Amino acid sequence: MELKSNERIDDLHIKGYRIIQNTDGFCFGMDAVLLSGFSRVREGEKHLDLGTGTGIIPILLEAKGKGVSYTGLEIQKPFVEMAKRSVQLNQIEDKVTILQGDIKEADRLLPLSGFDVVTSNPPYMNEGKGLKNPSSIKAIARHEVLCSLEDVVRAASRLVKVGGRFYMVHRPQRLADIIDLFRKYRLEPKRLRMVHPYIDKEATMVLVEGVRHGKPMMKVEPPLIVYEEVNCYTDEIYRIYGIERDAV
Amino acid sequence: MELKSNERIDDLHIKGYRIIQNTDGFCFGMDAVLLSGFSRVREGEKHLDLGTGTGIIPILLEAKGKGVSYTGLEIQKPFVEMAKRSVQLNQIEDKVTILQGDIKEADRLLPLSGFDVVTSNPPYMNEGKGLKNPSSIKAIARHEVLCSLEDVVRAASRLVKVGGRFYMVHRPQRLADIIDLFRKYRLEPKRLRMVHPYIDKEATMVLVEGVRHGKPMMKVEPPLIVYEEVNCYTDEIYRIYGIERDAV
Repeated sequence: MELKSNERIDDLHIKGYRIIQNTDGFCFGMDAVLLSGFSRVREGEKHLDLGTGTGIIPILLEAKGKGVSYTGLEIQKPFVEMAKRSVQLNQIEDKVTILQGDIKEADRLLPLSGFDVVTSNPPYMNEGKGLKNPSSIKAIARHEVLCSLEDVVRAASRLVKVGGRFYMVHRPQRLADIIDLFRKYRLEPKRLRMVHPYIDKEATMVLVEGVRHGKPMMKVEPPLIVYEEVNCYTDEIYRIYGIERDAV
Repeated sequence: MELKSNERIDDLHIKGYRIIQNTDGFCFGMDAVLLSGFSRVREGEKHLDLGTGTGIIPILLEAKGKGVSYTGLEIQKPFVEMAKRSVQLNQIEDKVTILQGDIKEADRLLPLSGFDVVTSNPPYMNEGKGLKNPSSIKAIARHEVLCSLEDVVRAASRLVKVGGRFYMVHRPQRLADIIDLFRKYRLEPKRLRMVHPYIDKEATMVLVEGVRHGKPMMKVEPPLIVYEEVNCYTDEIYRIYGIERDAV
């Protein structure tokens, strides 16, 4: 596998899988890993990831699950091309497909109600008006430049089956918007997990599961704490990353 | 102070205040104490508690804060009468008023936009259809027999000033409904805190602060953990209860 400049290959600590990243702004974050840990793809299910970036989420879910197919939709060509090479690197082309396309057009590119599970780690920032370089690859991946939270939720709702699950990671600041939009598009919020850097700190991420046309009844799972102390992850974070603690 | 049968006087561990409770179903729970710990009444502010029961919330808030007035609205006469005696017991009749009345009629009984702070620990249960004795005092206090969650949020929104705060404790199962209703009545959810019995257990209560006509931007505070281990509260719970840990 030939690498481009600034690219490197990282171990994913599961089934020997690896992923190509680019230190110039194409790296996945902890949010993607935690979303993969929070999501479930059961035997025989079809999965779709909206805004897949490096392809980390479909690759990790394929490694963990028994789904029949995993699709990653991504608008930015350099990401698409890099994610495709990661799929080849792991020899999972029969299971994982990376497609180029816009989330706002996803319901024309992909079958309506065609997926059992949809995931998304969308751009978070909605203060993007003053961006220096709003067309940069990094800005598009991180800010709501090309798609809004509502675009993502609408697409998920149109592509997931009735009774199917949509898993998303986002910022707690937007939690009221998230719940509002999930309900607007009939993805009933059923499961919520707050991620706190330390046990005595505010949440910095929120993991949410919605079920299309589900009945109202929410479960708030135990908090997910990232650090036990400075530079030391909690056991659960090591477990989600698939790293043996003693080996660190 | 004369007590009725099954009544007892409990110490509130703050300013020597005490409260009358009735072991026959008129006792306050941890939810009321945690709501008092989560709520703020600043100097000069007027406070209202919807569905005040024993009067525990206005009494605790009066003990802690510098508000000018604290009003508890309660529909059930036996509670009203008992809460009034607790107010007398603490000699705070100049600050704390207990009123009999229905939350659904609160906007006719009390001045619209007349309060800086509104609190409520409303009946939680909405599975009340099969209740054996739906008119019992206990059932009315705990189930949505006489008022629904929407009635409480609507009343709070009509009685709190623009920019004023509404603090509520409820069940996580209803979190999506809570956020929906807060937004419907323009009480923007600004602050959320999950209460977990143990750090590795699902949340059993949720504390939420809404600001009337506030801007969207939610903060999720550190989780509030009740027990460190069986029969042993966490330091924070002892602190909220005002109990010196060594004294226990």
